[in-house]
Amino acid sequence: MFNKYNVIVVGAGHAGCEAAAAAANLGSSVLLITMNMGTIAQMSCNPAMGGVAKGQIVREIDALGGYSGIITDKTSLQFRMLNRSKGPAMWSPRAQSDRIRFAEEWRIALEKTPNVDFWQDTVTSLLIKNNTVVGVKTSIGVEIEADAVVLTNGTFLNGIIHIGEKKFGGGRTGEKAATGLTEQLVSLGFEAGRMKTGTPPRVDGRSLNYHLMEEQWGDEERGRFSFTNVPLATDQRCCWITYTNAAVHETLKEGFEKSPMFTGRIKGLGPRYCPSIEDKINRFAERDRHQIFVEPEGWNTVEIYVNGFSTSLPEDVQYKALTQIPGFEKAKMFRPGYAIEYDFFPPTQLSLTLETKQISNLYFAGQINGTTGYEEAASQGFIAGINAHQKINDKHELILKRSESYIGVLIDDLVTKGTEEPYRMFTSRAEHRLLLRQDNADIRLSPIGYELGLINEERLAKVNDKIKNSDDIVAYTKAKSIEPGLVNGMLEALGTSAINQNTKLFNLLSRPQLGFNQLKQVDNSLQDLLSQYDKETIEQAEIKIKYESYFLKEMEIVERMKKMEDREINPEFNYHQLVSLSKEAREKLMRIKPRTLGQASRISGVSPSDISVLMVHVSR
Amino acid sequence: MFNKYNVIVVGAGHAGCEAAAAAANLGSSVLLITMNMGTIAQMSCNPAMGGVAKGQIVREIDALGGYSGIITDKTSLQFRMLNRSKGPAMWSPRAQSDRIRFAEEWRIALEKTPNVDFWQDTVTSLLIKNNTVVGVKTSIGVEIEADAVVLTNGTFLNGIIHIGEKKFGGGRTGEKAATGLTEQLVSLGFEAGRMKTGTPPRVDGRSLNYHLMEEQWGDEERGRFSFTNVPLATDQRCCWITYTNAAVHETLKEGFEKSPMFTGRIKGLGPRYCPSIEDKINRFAERDRHQIFVEPEGWNTVEIYVNGFSTSLPEDVQYKALTQIPGFEKAKMFRPGYAIEYDFFPPTQLSLTLETKQISNLYFAGQINGTTGYEEAASQGFIAGINAHQKINDKHELILKRSESYIGVLIDDLVTKGTEEPYRMFTSRAEHRLLLRQDNADIRLSPIGYELGLINEERLAKVNDKIKNSDDIVAYTKAKSIEPGLVNGMLEALGTSAINQNTKLFNLLSRPQLGFNQLKQVDNSLQDLLSQYDKETIEQAEIKIKYESYFLKEMEIVERMKKMEDREINPEFNYHQLVSLSKEAREKLMRIKPRTLGQASRISGVSPSDISVLMVHVSR
Repeated sequence: MFNKYNVIVVGAGHAGCEAAAAAANLGSSVLLITMNMGTIAQMSCNPAMGGVAKGQIVREIDALGGYSGIITDKTSLQFRMLNRSKGPAMWSPRAQSDRIRFAEEWRIALEKTPNVDFWQDTVTSLLIKNNTVVGVKTSIGVEIEADAVVLTNGTFLNGIIHIGEKKFGGGRTGEKAATGLTEQLVSLGFEAGRMKTGTPPRVDGRSLNYHLMEEQWGDEERGRFSFTNVPLATDQRCCWITYTNAAVHETLKEGFEKSPMFTGRIKGLGPRYCPSIEDKINRFAERDRHQIFVEPEGWNTVEIYVNGFSTSLPEDVQYKALTQIPGFEKAKMFRPGYAIEYDFFPPTQLSLTLETKQISNLYFAGQINGTTGYEEAASQGFIAGINAHQKINDKHELILKRSESYIGVLIDDLVTKGTEEPYRMFTSRAEHRLLLRQDNADIRLSPIGYELGLINEERLAKVNDKIKNSDDIVAYTKAKSIEPGLVNGMLEALGTSAINQNTKLFNLLSRPQLGFNQLKQVDNSLQDLLSQYDKETIEQAEIKIKYESYFLKEMEIVERMKKMEDREINPEFNYHQLVSLSKEAREKLMRIKPRTLGQASRISGVSPSDISVLMVHVSR
Repeated sequence: MFNKYNVIVVGAGHAGCEAAAAAANLGSSVLLITMNMGTIAQMSCNPAMGGVAKGQIVREIDALGGYSGIITDKTSLQFRMLNRSKGPAMWSPRAQSDRIRFAEEWRIALEKTPNVDFWQDTVTSLLIKNNTVVGVKTSIGVEIEADAVVLTNGTFLNGIIHIGEKKFGGGRTGEKAATGLTEQLVSLGFEAGRMKTGTPPRVDGRSLNYHLMEEQWGDEERGRFSFTNVPLATDQRCCWITYTNAAVHETLKEGFEKSPMFTGRIKGLGPRYCPSIEDKINRFAERDRHQIFVEPEGWNTVEIYVNGFSTSLPEDVQYKALTQIPGFEKAKMFRPGYAIEYDFFPPTQLSLTLETKQISNLYFAGQINGTTGYEEAASQGFIAGINAHQKINDKHELILKRSESYIGVLIDDLVTKGTEEPYRMFTSRAEHRLLLRQDNADIRLSPIGYELGLINEERLAKVNDKIKNSDDIVAYTKAKSIEPGLVNGMLEALGTSAINQNTKLFNLLSRPQLGFNQLKQVDNSLQDLLSQYDKETIEQAEIKIKYESYFLKEMEIVERMKKMEDREINPEFNYHQLVSLSKEAREKLMRIKPRTLGQASRISGVSPSDISVLMVHVSR
């Protein structure tokens, strides 16, 4: 009934969709198996992509040839570049999406990918021979062969939904859980754990009083995620902000004794940085209010996502507390929030390609690895799909460095350090974040996407143009001096000190008050030069000029660390023989099997002196 | 947490959506409870509305002020008027819909209905006081009060899905079944039964060879379901026709020993007139091929519905047989077909308002009553929603007559005769089908919709214009004679006999070869008259002219039967006291409690002599 596939992807969420598309676009025949063809690429939680550090990840996926950025641009109803007031390393794109359109565009994109086939079913076990995965078996008893399998099960593995004291099985509300896979993997020697996440109530927008909330509009000049030119909607929809208060908190506390979080019924750890509202008022007792983002679920629907109010308290407590929030006095719920517990597999059981160490050609991506977030999931799926294809074709694996991408940081963190609670990306996790900006994701990663064959020559040429042209602009500003008389009037008006001798444009531009917009008024050649280039190129040049010294310093650090970071270790190295290592270091190193000295140095329990020992002894 | 609602509707399929909209538009506060807000108004089986007799039902719903016709028009990708070559009573509109758009437009329509609230949850029991329903209880333990409840549970009550020898619980594939309600209703004294229905495999349109199939395009001049002017898409999508053959049948037979249909594992009876392919080759062994309609599931998707190939054979047998169909040689399945068994409640337990006889203010609509088909479900939901509102507001109930609508036939059949197998509408079920045409649904029913308050004065005025104007055209043709010399050339050319004296246009028009299109060429006044009116009005006039004698005869019959049909019986009448009735008649009459002598006469087991007895004794 089925021919053998190159790659089977289990699950069609953000991770599964990117995995399927990537492997297929590289040339693998792919079967995407989902429990329900009607729920491909659901935004199970908030209807938004991006945000701080997460937006950078989406830009990176796009630069490498993934789809998440394109789908988001096609379906976004509001776009904002967060942190514009901070340095460019903090700028983070974020978009509200139309939930139905987002899912539909993903499905259309996958259907247009010639090598992707679909099968609606539930995978209940893996077919394994000689410690290598060779296919899957499904709930209706079908066996399907494959060279590689990517598991992206999300919250479905033995999922249990909690609302107050009630609990029931399910992968999402109204959908079945998946059983069998965890049990098989554990019997094969995998370690499994439990995690927990949650979602807020959805409410009827017709029942809200928006006059009592603050409007939050998107950027006037609308940005985008994708480096391709996806057409954007011209309109945007408004979001709103409101706040909890002491009364809301008091009401919520009344429900604590029935909360599955506090009564110990939920064993899994929840996402620290995306906490439930009860967690927030518990952990931050000193705060008298918390922000609530009121987000529409689509262009046409009245359904509203109550961002910041994730909860598993009893539904009557949720409701009572909700109605004490300004603007929510007459709120009608569509459904209560809930918590969900699910199985994950500590990601230290993976190599940096996201292949499991125990079973060859088996890859894990997304929440199954203990992460949270659409963007984190999508990027893992993307990398797993690529590596599955590369491995079965004896091509080089794709391991992104920490110094070149957030995706590299994410996977290195997971694989090297593991995670005890749902892992979410932050800019602070990236030691070289100054270099890992949303504006240069294309410059950093397009060559890799091109080399893999996921982006075409035209896209690469566009990136090279952007590099060259922005460098030309920088060079011009370094060459061109400007006379005090031409500029001092403006400088004073802008509140910055006058100059008393000819000064390079470059030096003037390092002042925060000054940008191209100001200086091109006093330098016609600059005006002419800039008029030749697009917005992205000009912005790139301005960022390079303003932050050049910081970037150079950061690149020096990268260079200095390169020696250790790139020093490869034979993954089969037997650390037990190195008695000068601490016992803990030996055990951890045997478990993680780091690929480089750099990775070894990030394993908790491996000390600087252990690294010194390794430096002497290891070599590939 | 919830205020008391006027009407709670359980289930958001075709029945539930119409019920909610109707009750809300009449002024009731309505809560629509669905297991999943993401699956409102799913087309669970084929992506089409209408068809023979069913299309008439959709037109009737529209004429009364329901939404099904509007939603279908908004989302249809192909429209055909079936049976155009037969008399106008057989003309039946049918449209292919975009499955995703259909569901989305229904949801938007409901969200725009101010009195409809939503709640995502599963109803597990009814709250009942003094044999009257007063609310529902849900799986998360919420109790919600209401004056009336409409149950539209579809195939979800204790649903079991069968594929070959495998079976698992579910209301649709990938969705949970609903438990609790049947058990409670049975404990209250309701009789429950099991029915079965099925659905074909879905396949990947990219894997089909359309060159080996016949194209089937929609009508060039696109028709519509709604009497309102919903804008229609200008494009249409093509469908295809192909056929099974001896090899396909042989392959299917190989699976019979594993078929849940033939091994007795499925207890419920399936729809006789929408049989599975295995049923077809079994029951019609003499036929060497069966037609397969190849229907796209939407504007953009490659998913294809294999209409005519419903099956619950093992998936490998389905696959092998499919690939023996011309054009399907390389077919890839998205999912196998399956059969589903579910609980229903024999509808003789209902009164003609669709209220249950045992529990006041409780209404049943759709598959729970043993029917099959979106249109049958939608119309019942619509009537149940209206009657729930009317009852709790002490307003007159809505019981449509058999002589004025298919909906009246449907409900009278169900309530009076019950059904042993899934009930589907046919033109043959309507004894007055000559009068129950798709073209005059607005004329028949708009006054009722207006009186209820579901359609506005403007719509009613438009209908009255159509009546008056088409009558004016008819009158003109009766008044105007035409000379032989003017018309004989044309008559001969059209192969119909010449006239030898002045003849009324009306008489000429009764000839099948002649229509307005011909005669307006020889009569300028006719041309001028027709140019004043729209297409529907002209078509109405032409139908009236061509079939007037038949219609008059049919109306006479209706009039003659009216005496019996309208003779009301006191529903509390104690038939046991009438010893001159047969025992069977007494029992059946006590059970059905017919509202009229006409209804009594249709109860199986009630003989003409029983009716004579009743004529003498019953009176209200």
